[in-house]
Amino acid sequence: MRLLYEGKSKQIFSTDDPNEVLVCFKDSVTAQNGLKKDIYRDKGRVNSAFTRHFFSILEETGIKTHVVSYLDDTSIRAKHLRIFSLEIVVRNYAAGSICKRYNYEKGYRFETPLLEFFLKSDELCDPPITEEEIIERDLATIEEISFIKAQTLKVNEVLSKQVDKKGVILVDFKLEYGREASGQILLADEISPDSCRFWLKSTMESLDKDVYREDKGDLVDSYKKLMEILGVKHEI
Amino acid sequence: MRLLYEGKSKQIFSTDDPNEVLVCFKDSVTAQNGLKKDIYRDKGRVNSAFTRHFFSILEETGIKTHVVSYLDDTSIRAKHLRIFSLEIVVRNYAAGSICKRYNYEKGYRFETPLLEFFLKSDELCDPPITEEEIIERDLATIEEISFIKAQTLKVNEVLSKQVDKKGVILVDFKLEYGREASGQILLADEISPDSCRFWLKSTMESLDKDVYREDKGDLVDSYKKLMEILGVKHEI
Repeated sequence: MRLLYEGKSKQIFSTDDPNEVLVCFKDSVTAQNGLKKDIYRDKGRVNSAFTRHFFSILEETGIKTHVVSYLDDTSIRAKHLRIFSLEIVVRNYAAGSICKRYNYEKGYRFETPLLEFFLKSDELCDPPITEEEIIERDLATIEEISFIKAQTLKVNEVLSKQVDKKGVILVDFKLEYGREASGQILLADEISPDSCRFWLKSTMESLDKDVYREDKGDLVDSYKKLMEILGVKHEI
Repeated sequence: MRLLYEGKSKQIFSTDDPNEVLVCFKDSVTAQNGLKKDIYRDKGRVNSAFTRHFFSILEETGIKTHVVSYLDDTSIRAKHLRIFSLEIVVRNYAAGSICKRYNYEKGYRFETPLLEFFLKSDELCDPPITEEEIIERDLATIEEISFIKAQTLKVNEVLSKQVDKKGVILVDFKLEYGREASGQILLADEISPDSCRFWLKSTMESLDKDVYREDKGDLVDSYKKLMEILGVKHEI
């Protein structure tokens, strides 16, 4: 196994099959574009469990992901994709950067979910990017953009309903997608409280990375509390 | 006449007709979101002449503007519109903010003109805004956005060709539009070296507000040089 890529919270290794990779969740967490950095024991295992939980729900509704199999507590065997250098963010409620950018009150409910693309670039601090600019930079075609947007809205519908049943609001989240050699686009990366904002309806408490960003308590304790509420299983 | 609105480089007055306003060009110039500020004698007259020149060319090709009549050297009698709180920017070449935002070399030629919307907001420093966000904030409908984009590309085609004949590159520019009570959308504001970047093909010299932004010489001298090159008339 060769390390192909190391991100802020995951490592990607090659496998014996060139069409597959190993995605390993790390215990590290970062914020402020890497300025704030820590290790939380169990975080990798917890986020791996969330991703398993959400990806399985999505697969059941016909949304295809990069998962080949769940190997162990912290690793996913996944298709080797060409990951788009894009993040797509869906917002149901205003929180985080958009509040400052457009002067929204935190918690403002958007009439329809708001979609935004961001360029994946540490150097440029992941700036927002328009569809025209995505095409200009050959990051994705217009058809791929349309597919990614439609698919992301489906993911939002499925997951919002799912967590709502448990008394949790899906505030916003980011997804990443990749392309197989065949051209098929698959949902990749992870879905966890690192990549989503979740608010407890009863108290409006954050159970996501904002706990870390805003120093509001122990990150993994909050994540585990959310696991319990949503019925996320620790074991495979 | 009552002052309805005062911007960084123009004043808008009411007239005897509630459907019409007076647009007066000022001699002031600002940059860095108002941090840098100066007065240049004749600037109002010069920018008014540019706007007359470019708007007349556009009107001839069927692009409708807010102009009712050119009143004097520095004033336009114009339709009283509901101005969209949006700026639309077209870029043929990379210059200014986009270079830093996406790491483009200054002068990089885009394969197709790049369109971007910005929210008009001094408080928020005119951030880029997505079409979804424009609709969410009720700033314009999807049909209005489509019209504005198509119209702006037409303006770009007409003006790029026009100045190219005189040895000048239209690098980028911003437009503003407004809506009549009837719903008709008209091109508003101004078209001048304050709102466009122009480069002399022979020397790649800037003949626009970058002269002021980057302290490269006397702003009005550069504007007058461009007037001569483009055949812009001083008098009505």
